[in-house]
Amino acid sequence: MTYHFADKIATLKPSAVREILKSANAPGMIAFSAGNPAAESFPVEAIQQVTADILASRSNVALQYGITEGYAPLIEKITSRDRARHHVGRDFDQTIITSGAQEAIDFTARVLCNEGDTVLCENPSFVGALNAFRSYNVNLVGIPLESDGLDLNALEHALKTEKNVRFLYVIPNFQNPAGITTSLEKRRAIYELAKRYGIMILEDNPYGELRFAGQDVPAIKSMDEDGIVIYCGSFSKILSSGLRVGYATAPAAVVSKMVIAKQCCDVHTTLLSQMIADEFLSNYDLEAHLQKIRDLYREKSSCMLACIDEHFDARVTTTRPEGGLFLWSTLPEGCDVAAFAKLLLERKVAVVPGQAFLPNESDQTTSFRMNYSTPSMENIRAGIAIIGDVMKTFLK
Amino acid sequence: MTYHFADKIATLKPSAVREILKSANAPGMIAFSAGNPAAESFPVEAIQQVTADILASRSNVALQYGITEGYAPLIEKITSRDRARHHVGRDFDQTIITSGAQEAIDFTARVLCNEGDTVLCENPSFVGALNAFRSYNVNLVGIPLESDGLDLNALEHALKTEKNVRFLYVIPNFQNPAGITTSLEKRRAIYELAKRYGIMILEDNPYGELRFAGQDVPAIKSMDEDGIVIYCGSFSKILSSGLRVGYATAPAAVVSKMVIAKQCCDVHTTLLSQMIADEFLSNYDLEAHLQKIRDLYREKSSCMLACIDEHFDARVTTTRPEGGLFLWSTLPEGCDVAAFAKLLLERKVAVVPGQAFLPNESDQTTSFRMNYSTPSMENIRAGIAIIGDVMKTFLK
Repeated sequence: MTYHFADKIATLKPSAVREILKSANAPGMIAFSAGNPAAESFPVEAIQQVTADILASRSNVALQYGITEGYAPLIEKITSRDRARHHVGRDFDQTIITSGAQEAIDFTARVLCNEGDTVLCENPSFVGALNAFRSYNVNLVGIPLESDGLDLNALEHALKTEKNVRFLYVIPNFQNPAGITTSLEKRRAIYELAKRYGIMILEDNPYGELRFAGQDVPAIKSMDEDGIVIYCGSFSKILSSGLRVGYATAPAAVVSKMVIAKQCCDVHTTLLSQMIADEFLSNYDLEAHLQKIRDLYREKSSCMLACIDEHFDARVTTTRPEGGLFLWSTLPEGCDVAAFAKLLLERKVAVVPGQAFLPNESDQTTSFRMNYSTPSMENIRAGIAIIGDVMKTFLK
Repeated sequence: MTYHFADKIATLKPSAVREILKSANAPGMIAFSAGNPAAESFPVEAIQQVTADILASRSNVALQYGITEGYAPLIEKITSRDRARHHVGRDFDQTIITSGAQEAIDFTARVLCNEGDTVLCENPSFVGALNAFRSYNVNLVGIPLESDGLDLNALEHALKTEKNVRFLYVIPNFQNPAGITTSLEKRRAIYELAKRYGIMILEDNPYGELRFAGQDVPAIKSMDEDGIVIYCGSFSKILSSGLRVGYATAPAAVVSKMVIAKQCCDVHTTLLSQMIADEFLSNYDLEAHLQKIRDLYREKSSCMLACIDEHFDARVTTTRPEGGLFLWSTLPEGCDVAAFAKLLLERKVAVVPGQAFLPNESDQTTSFRMNYSTPSMENIRAGIAIIGDVMKTFLK
């Protein structure tokens, strides 16, 4: 049989990052290609303890169907903490628990966009989000990312010229892939522009708690007097990614549509996962746990940057993130970064060529993404030395 | 701000069943409205044991990101069992683990249908699936369900006259809501019609293992020499619904598109849930466990039917299912079943008016759905007596 596929899916390729991730499991490979948190960042003993407690005392809740909106005690804890610490969430907002923040991103496009509507995003941006948007057949328009956030002139130009713009997708903290943090000034300007042009902002903040240098910058959602910001958070980088627990806090009208989308899609997020997150927040010191992760990532990123300073050609620039999981290195103009990444694979080092992160796939880039949370310190040193070595020949 | 929503979502209402489910939690309510498995059907001790083992020995796998296709050992066990016991799955098929079978249903429409394409389904049918299809703006066409399955003439007429039919959605075993099982003859005829008219079949089989009377009927997928059937199974009714583990077995080309949809949506299903299902299949006797559930549901359905025979007006007909979770009762023509259900709510008994299950929401029905898996035997007796009592006045 010749299968007929939806136009919007037929042209989508499997995520290059996830495909590379698979090859990165080859024996002996030094993988800088993952987007995974460090295994040692999972509070394993605490999760063992709370899971045993839940299954001993509330298995009837954990194993049964739950409501689509999410486990109420967890929602209560998330919203209290976000309000108190980040000024995120107002009386007009509601919170829905999603199966990872990815699902909240997917649902945003699903509930806000007709086919052909425009979505704006940073260029480069997180490929998982870009593919979710593409799968709804939207007109995806990238706005150049500068060292302190979006190019505001380009953003306003797009708002003026693109038709039916529904929302702008941004990752203001330690952006994936670029490791860039949007300045407070630019966050304010982005909010004002969105308000002026009547579009929503999808603020994705999976890494916000992982700041290991500098000062926190207020979330765009904290400025949201007008109910135009959908804010996504996640437990994937601070508790466990395998549990698949994220959330969106957004105006009630938007969340009510997301609830409908979720009823259609997976009914509710795994209750045991939600209850583990809830019990962890109840019984353990999240702030102390976060401090440990930050210390770990500070050490790993510093190590990777020090090795880069030692081994990389001076013409190659690299972002110096204040948190998160990623570095973004850029080869000199004209270089073929895909060929470079292929040479690295032959030497058993995996990085992600920047092409994967471009909203417009026919654009060119000479950048590549490296992750420092997953590899060991030893592999960071060995891998960066190999990349530096390959660079010598490649840039000759 | 006035929010702009996607056309396909703007008109969708929250699932009536899930809304009734919420009100059914009111104190003192006898809820025949749920679609939940019995709490006593969860193998709690086994789940406690395997969960503790997983978190003690393989937390690094359970808590980390996994591949989108699903946990390989679980896929291997599902496919071996389905092939051996049900002749489901051929060499051209692959299996993807989904967050409940609901997600496989959603993905089927997502990958096969453009807006405006036609999806055929049984009338009545499972509201969760109908809403998923509606959310992709398809042309949803219901085919009348007879006591042994679809009306084949109506099916062929629809195949001849409807445009761009992409697939037919059926629940051949103990259908939700009607409790009807499609005969072997009709399964063969449905397969041949689908093949002749070049459409796919989405065979949803969440209740197939819950047969407590009569003989198993081969799955339509077991006849699939041509690669036209997408088969969905689920652990929700046999292990735990809260864990959210289901799967689809379908031709590799279709599964590869579902993998792309899943990368966009929730990346992968909760790994701990997948590993719990896998370890349960490894270390416990599923067949013995299923036998216990079947015995339980046989007892409960027999009790409900005996009470119906005693208390219901003779003009009210009720299906006598050989498995699954539901009975479907039909009031005499002209009755307002919504008003009847409202009267029952006032007497603290919740049923689901049949309207919720109609593909065409402007059609009329006098039927309502009752669930026997969740209520206690005592509540089954009390609730059916109340319904019979209300019926006396209502049908006067």
